[in-house]
Amino acid sequence: MTALYAVIMAGGRGERFWPLSTGKLPKPFIQLLGPASLIQDTVARIQPIVPLERVLISIGPSHLDIARRQLPQIPAGNFIVEPVGRDTSACIGFCALHVERRDPEGLILALPADHFVSDPDGYRKTIELGLDSLEGAAGVVFGIRPDRPETGYGYIRAEKPAIAADAWPVVRFVEKPDASTAAQFLASGSYFWNSGMFLWRNRILLDLFERHMPETGLGLGELRLLLAEGGSGPEISRIFSALPRISIDFGIMEKTRGLRLVPAQFVWDDIGNWASLGRALSSDSMGNIARGSHVALDSSGCVLYAQTGKVAVFGVSDLIVVEAYGKVLVCSKDRAADLKRLVTALGPEEG
Amino acid sequence: MTALYAVIMAGGRGERFWPLSTGKLPKPFIQLLGPASLIQDTVARIQPIVPLERVLISIGPSHLDIARRQLPQIPAGNFIVEPVGRDTSACIGFCALHVERRDPEGLILALPADHFVSDPDGYRKTIELGLDSLEGAAGVVFGIRPDRPETGYGYIRAEKPAIAADAWPVVRFVEKPDASTAAQFLASGSYFWNSGMFLWRNRILLDLFERHMPETGLGLGELRLLLAEGGSGPEISRIFSALPRISIDFGIMEKTRGLRLVPAQFVWDDIGNWASLGRALSSDSMGNIARGSHVALDSSGCVLYAQTGKVAVFGVSDLIVVEAYGKVLVCSKDRAADLKRLVTALGPEEG
Repeated sequence: MTALYAVIMAGGRGERFWPLSTGKLPKPFIQLLGPASLIQDTVARIQPIVPLERVLISIGPSHLDIARRQLPQIPAGNFIVEPVGRDTSACIGFCALHVERRDPEGLILALPADHFVSDPDGYRKTIELGLDSLEGAAGVVFGIRPDRPETGYGYIRAEKPAIAADAWPVVRFVEKPDASTAAQFLASGSYFWNSGMFLWRNRILLDLFERHMPETGLGLGELRLLLAEGGSGPEISRIFSALPRISIDFGIMEKTRGLRLVPAQFVWDDIGNWASLGRALSSDSMGNIARGSHVALDSSGCVLYAQTGKVAVFGVSDLIVVEAYGKVLVCSKDRAADLKRLVTALGPEEG
Repeated sequence: MTALYAVIMAGGRGERFWPLSTGKLPKPFIQLLGPASLIQDTVARIQPIVPLERVLISIGPSHLDIARRQLPQIPAGNFIVEPVGRDTSACIGFCALHVERRDPEGLILALPADHFVSDPDGYRKTIELGLDSLEGAAGVVFGIRPDRPETGYGYIRAEKPAIAADAWPVVRFVEKPDASTAAQFLASGSYFWNSGMFLWRNRILLDLFERHMPETGLGLGELRLLLAEGGSGPEISRIFSALPRISIDFGIMEKTRGLRLVPAQFVWDDIGNWASLGRALSSDSMGNIARGSHVALDSSGCVLYAQTGKVAVFGVSDLIVVEAYGKVLVCSKDRAADLKRLVTALGPEEG
C-alpha cells in the first residue's frame, strides 16, 4: 500500500483571536474549543490513519518552539521550517520535497492546522474516500456542502457523478462571491466550499508545480538539490524567499484538469473569527456561546470566553467578550472580522 | 478654641462596583479615581483642618484590617468598630460617645468615606463656613446645589438668608423625589442635595438622640457606662445590636428644628455606581471615561476600568467594562444601578 503523509500547515496570524491569539501565539496554538489547541486537535484527528512518523508540521521559525512543545509526540525531524511565509504553494511544495525524500511514491494530504471538525470519524472516512478516488485523478479536493450563502469562502463547482458514491469531477474554482452569487451557489447544489484540504500523489503534485508554476518549480528543483546535499539554512532561506507568494488554489488547482471533489461527511468550520465560534460551540437558551467561567444575565447573542478569570455580562447583546492573559476584548459581533484594525491600534507588541 | 473631631463612616457594601469592590473590599477601600482609595482621599482632604489624632474611623469588624492597612497614620485607638451595621444613627451615636470621652465640649463632623470631591480647598472652606454657622444652631448640614433633576438623592429645602454669606435655615428634609418633583426642586433654587455630611456640637447631638430617638438614647447611655468601665466586646455588641436600624436623617435630622445649611463650594458626587464615574472623571472626544490601560476604537459613551490588565473595546457604545482581580464586567450603562442583581447571580463568594 502506498504510504500517506499528512502535511499540517501551521501558518496563520494572531490578529483575529486577540487577546487569546497574538503574533507569538497564532491561531493554531490557542485553546479555542477545548483543552487541546487547534493543531493538537488536528494531529489527534488524523492519527488513526496517518502514523506520527508520517505527519509533517509546516511551521515558521518563530513558532517552532511552541509547536514542538505542543506536539512532543511528533519526531523532531518532521517539523519543516518555512524560512519565511510564502503562502500555501511554497509551503506545500517544500513539504512535497521532504515527502519525496522519504518515499518517492508517497501520497500527500495537506491540512490546515486551525479548522473545526465536528466528527472525527466522518472526517477520517472522508479522507479514506479521497484515497479511493485518487486513482486516475490529478488530485482530490475536499468540499463542504454550503448551508448558508457565505461570502467569506472560496467555492468549487463540481459535477454530480452518475454513481452517488463516486467523487465529483471538479469543474472550476470560484473566488469569494458576492451575496447574490453566493445565494445562487447555495441553491444550485453544484457548489461546495473549498475546505483548503487537498490530496495528491506527491509525484504528480511536483509535476503540477513544474507545469503550472514554473518559477516555483525551478526553485523547488534547487531546494531539492540543497536538501540532498545537506545544504545550509541560509542557502535554503535565500531560495525559499524568492518563491512567488501565491496560494496553491491560485497557483495550481485553478489550472489543473482532472481534479475530483469528495464531499465532506462532517460539519466543518474554519472559525475565521470570534463571531464564528458560535458555529462550533452550542449556545444557551439566549443564544450566548461561552467557554470558561461566566455569568450572562439579561444578555443574548454574546460570545464569552474566559481563559483563567471570570466574565460577567449584564443587559447586553451581540457582543464578543474575551478575557485572556489579563487582557479584555469587548467587540461588537459585526466587527469581529475586522479585528485586525483594533490590534493595529493596540500597537506592535500586541500584533 | 473648641476641638473638632471628624468621624469618617466607612460602612457600605461591595456590590455596585463589582468586580473592583466586593464584600471583603467595599467601596471606601477601592482605588476608583486615582492611586489612593476613596477613604484615603477623604482622610487626606480633611487633614489640614482636623489633626489625625482627632480623626475617628467608624468601621465594621470584617474591614478593620484593611482600614488599618490603608490608614497607618491614624492612631490604632481611633478605629471605632461597629459590632454590626445599624445604619448611620447608631454609627454616629457610638462615635459621639467616643468624642465625649475625649472632649465633652468637642464638635463632631460626620463624613461619608466614599464620596468624590473636586476641590479640596473649597471643601475645607465649606467646612469652615459650617464651623462659623454652628453658633446658636442645632446643627449644620452641607447641601449640594443640584445641577440636574436627580431622583437618586435625598433633598433638603432651605430658606435663602437675608445676608448672602450666612447659612440657610433648614425648612425640611425630603426623600428621593420622582422625576417631575426633582425638576421642580431644581428650578426652585431652594432645594439642595443632602450630602450626608453633618456637623454638630457633640453635646447637642447626644441631646438630640435622647429627645428624638429615645430608644437609641437609652442604648447609648448603657454603652457610655460600658466604655467608662472598659466593658467587654460581647457586652457592647449585645447592646449595639439592639439599637434601631435607622439613618440619622430619618431618626434625628428630619425632626430637628434650628438646623442650618451651608451650600457646598465644591463639586460633589457620591459616585453611586460605575455609570456615575463619568461625573468625576473627564471623558475623551467620544464620551468615553477610562482609567488604566485601554484602547477604544469606534466606541462611544463607555466607562472603561483596567486594574492591572488592558481593556480594548471596538464598535460598542454605552457600556461599562471593568477588569479587576482577573474578573471582567461588561454591563449596559443603564443597568449600572442594578448591579446587585448580577452580583447575586454570581453567587455568595462574589458578594
